[in-house]
Amino acid sequence: MSDQNISVLRRAQIDVTVAGITLQNENYAKCNRGVKIVPDQSLSNISNFDIYDVIVIPGGLNAAKAISSNPEVQKLLASMHQAGKFVAAICAGTLAIKSANINKGGKITSHPIVKADLENEYSYQEDRVVVDNKVVTSRGPGTALLFALTIVELLLGEEKRNEVSNHMIVASIL
Amino acid sequence: MSDQNISVLRRAQIDVTVAGITLQNENYAKCNRGVKIVPDQSLSNISNFDIYDVIVIPGGLNAAKAISSNPEVQKLLASMHQAGKFVAAICAGTLAIKSANINKGGKITSHPIVKADLENEYSYQEDRVVVDNKVVTSRGPGTALLFALTIVELLLGEEKRNEVSNHMIVASIL
Repeated sequence: MSDQNISVLRRAQIDVTVAGITLQNENYAKCNRGVKIVPDQSLSNISNFDIYDVIVIPGGLNAAKAISSNPEVQKLLASMHQAGKFVAAICAGTLAIKSANINKGGKITSHPIVKADLENEYSYQEDRVVVDNKVVTSRGPGTALLFALTIVELLLGEEKRNEVSNHMIVASIL
Repeated sequence: MSDQNISVLRRAQIDVTVAGITLQNENYAKCNRGVKIVPDQSLSNISNFDIYDVIVIPGGLNAAKAISSNPEVQKLLASMHQAGKFVAAICAGTLAIKSANINKGGKITSHPIVKADLENEYSYQEDRVVVDNKVVTSRGPGTALLFALTIVELLLGEEKRNEVSNHMIVASIL
């Protein structure tokens, strides 16, 4: 459900780079439900991460497994977190937060399908979005809008969040 | 915001064909906010529409203009509607319902940005999803989940809708 996150951030005038890893087809990433998305860049081709304020890990169980077991991603997540940047993950993507050894013992959430993988090492929450120590996590496609809008608010403030939210006709209660 | 619609329908085990028209780059469609999606088929290459129960027009103002002014799409929408199939459109995509001359005078909604183009010829509503005479319309990215779940319910019933909705962690109130 990653294109919704991308669209919401871009609506807030945030520069987004969609980075691909280990693509089976060199031209696109095949998402959980067969949607084919063309990344802007291969992650390996990005040399300077200092310009990024947040890294967002998408959901989807297969993607989450590939991403969370990728050493390049683990290193990147850990260094972003150490530098005081936001790291964010949704659905099964939260597994990548764990595999990067970030904020252990802190508050976290995920899709229920991977709860058992997380609850021993984190304070597992069932809120729709959880923010703790610059780690932003969320539950699934049904919470993706709230997740993306939360990232907008963390980076640019409540006014910008409301502006984007109103234009997208988001219900006052998600 | 079309990948969310695709994903929701596929979660309900509905066979979905993502059809492209007039792609500027032959390999992908560039969405409203720069997300690049690879269609499954070119619309021109689909010869048999009898197998489809619904056609769904995505949003995005530029896409809506291209789609609604496309004679192939107009003809397809009109013949689907005439055959008693569902036609659905979201955001500015509702313009295609109008240009295909479907259900004039009936209830419709859209993104507010194109309300003025529709209110003279339709009974314009401000509900998040409107269903009238097998025409399903909705308002924007913030109503996309409800729109897709409504299509699931219309095709497969409330039980399937609830099953998909629960797995996606959709709030009871969208």
